[in-house]
Amino acid sequence: MAYAAARAAIGDSEFDRDTAVVPRPGEPGTYDLALSPGWTIIQAVNGGYLLAVVGRALRDALPHDDPFTVTAHYLTASQPGPAVIRTETVRAGRTMSTGQASLYQTDDEGREIERIRVIAAYGDLDALPDDVRTAALPPQMPGYEDCVSSHDAPAGSGPVPGSTAIVDRLDLRLDPATAGWAIGFPSGRGDMRGWLGLADGRDHDPLSLLLAVDALPPTAFDLGIKGWVPTVELTVHIRCRPAPGPVRVSVTTRNLAGGYLEEDVQVWDAADRLVAQSRQLARAPRG
Amino acid sequence: MAYAAARAAIGDSEFDRDTAVVPRPGEPGTYDLALSPGWTIIQAVNGGYLLAVVGRALRDALPHDDPFTVTAHYLTASQPGPAVIRTETVRAGRTMSTGQASLYQTDDEGREIERIRVIAAYGDLDALPDDVRTAALPPQMPGYEDCVSSHDAPAGSGPVPGSTAIVDRLDLRLDPATAGWAIGFPSGRGDMRGWLGLADGRDHDPLSLLLAVDALPPTAFDLGIKGWVPTVELTVHIRCRPAPGPVRVSVTTRNLAGGYLEEDVQVWDAADRLVAQSRQLARAPRG
Repeated sequence: MAYAAARAAIGDSEFDRDTAVVPRPGEPGTYDLALSPGWTIIQAVNGGYLLAVVGRALRDALPHDDPFTVTAHYLTASQPGPAVIRTETVRAGRTMSTGQASLYQTDDEGREIERIRVIAAYGDLDALPDDVRTAALPPQMPGYEDCVSSHDAPAGSGPVPGSTAIVDRLDLRLDPATAGWAIGFPSGRGDMRGWLGLADGRDHDPLSLLLAVDALPPTAFDLGIKGWVPTVELTVHIRCRPAPGPVRVSVTTRNLAGGYLEEDVQVWDAADRLVAQSRQLARAPRG
Repeated sequence: MAYAAARAAIGDSEFDRDTAVVPRPGEPGTYDLALSPGWTIIQAVNGGYLLAVVGRALRDALPHDDPFTVTAHYLTASQPGPAVIRTETVRAGRTMSTGQASLYQTDDEGREIERIRVIAAYGDLDALPDDVRTAALPPQMPGYEDCVSSHDAPAGSGPVPGSTAIVDRLDLRLDPATAGWAIGFPSGRGDMRGWLGLADGRDHDPLSLLLAVDALPPTAFDLGIKGWVPTVELTVHIRCRPAPGPVRVSVTTRNLAGGYLEEDVQVWDAADRLVAQSRQLARAPRG
């Protein structure tokens, strides 16, 4: 697999700058930040980016550094611009701590509106034993060089139709077998697979995996359904610190029913380890 | 499939009595209750029963009746006996509302200890459109009569070793292919499947599905690992009101690594609909 050596480092990259949170003096557990316009799809701030921002505040607030399991409820649509995160340490244990956080933005009348509420358990991934007994298999897909980059496509033609800023922040290469919808031929299976790096070459870490689990186009597109697929709830488990290089992200939807669908995600690193699993409940497009 | 006609009705059954919560006068959103000793495994209160109790309080507190997605973090071990649940209405929308709840018990020094924290979205399952485009398939398993009931086993040898009260509350019949561990022959695959009803014949409803997703023996047993498998976090999506009769519950673990494992659950009703999906992150037994 050919892949450019990392240029931006973890801690000094677009992703790190755009997820920065500033502890508010005199208010422990409260963080100020600006949601970047660089991670939007159409007008909406990407849900994975939001999760990473809140995850970063929780990392600062809790005694442990690594998200083990993070659940977010998306309450109202976030806008680029100022925001505040308020965290609560629910429980601080020896090997694991539990925290809660809400991100708020202020509306035109000066009222704080809650955008997203998160509950999470953090621990230390490096302290875990080495045992691995996985029966899960990495997704079958072509190599990085044989997948379809949105940068290869003619201007305005995809593979994320109408998408905007986030495309420039990601190095996303879709498996051609799950990219047919972009030219009018969805497979109908409800699958989406791709290689995912960050455009500036920053390697993944547990925080960017929070982004990775909600960074691919909706599986609804592969089911032939167009439109907005708002996330109600997303839970991610980070199981392992990812190896350098892009990760493989596999998303499947098996049950579209009653106007809702699940998106089940596996993230595999270059060392063939299952580094993250997530599932979200989303509202199906009306179309 | 032969199955006794329902004797106990939804609303008037062991499960309903044991999950009852009483609004505390003058404290809106606060509920008193007693955790029943009838849903314990060894000394521990079953996590699915706890989820149902908290889910019932949220049903009372929120403007919608049906849990759509519920996430619980298990903080400390609950004991049978008095408890209090404090709920918060996070957001009340037209078709969906979001709530949070914590269950507390009082320790010997009179301090309130938080046992479990829940965040959930509720809606109205009966208001959903009828569209179903599922590619998921029901678990392949023998019929109800050909599965193994713990009540069929010699005393003390039943498929849930050392288990106690909850066995008498459930009508659980395991697929023999996933019950070999009980006689010393785990399959090694990490699967657990069974038919699950309530012992008094009460049919399932969305609240009892919260119990169902954590009612089978741990998949770790089928991997040949004995011991306690404490849940860190469990998220369940209820997708459809279940048809009368026992449900089929399929649990799989594919990634046991770093001392943790996921348990992925599907619940199918008698009408072959996928009525619930859940995933939990649990700590693997040390053994």
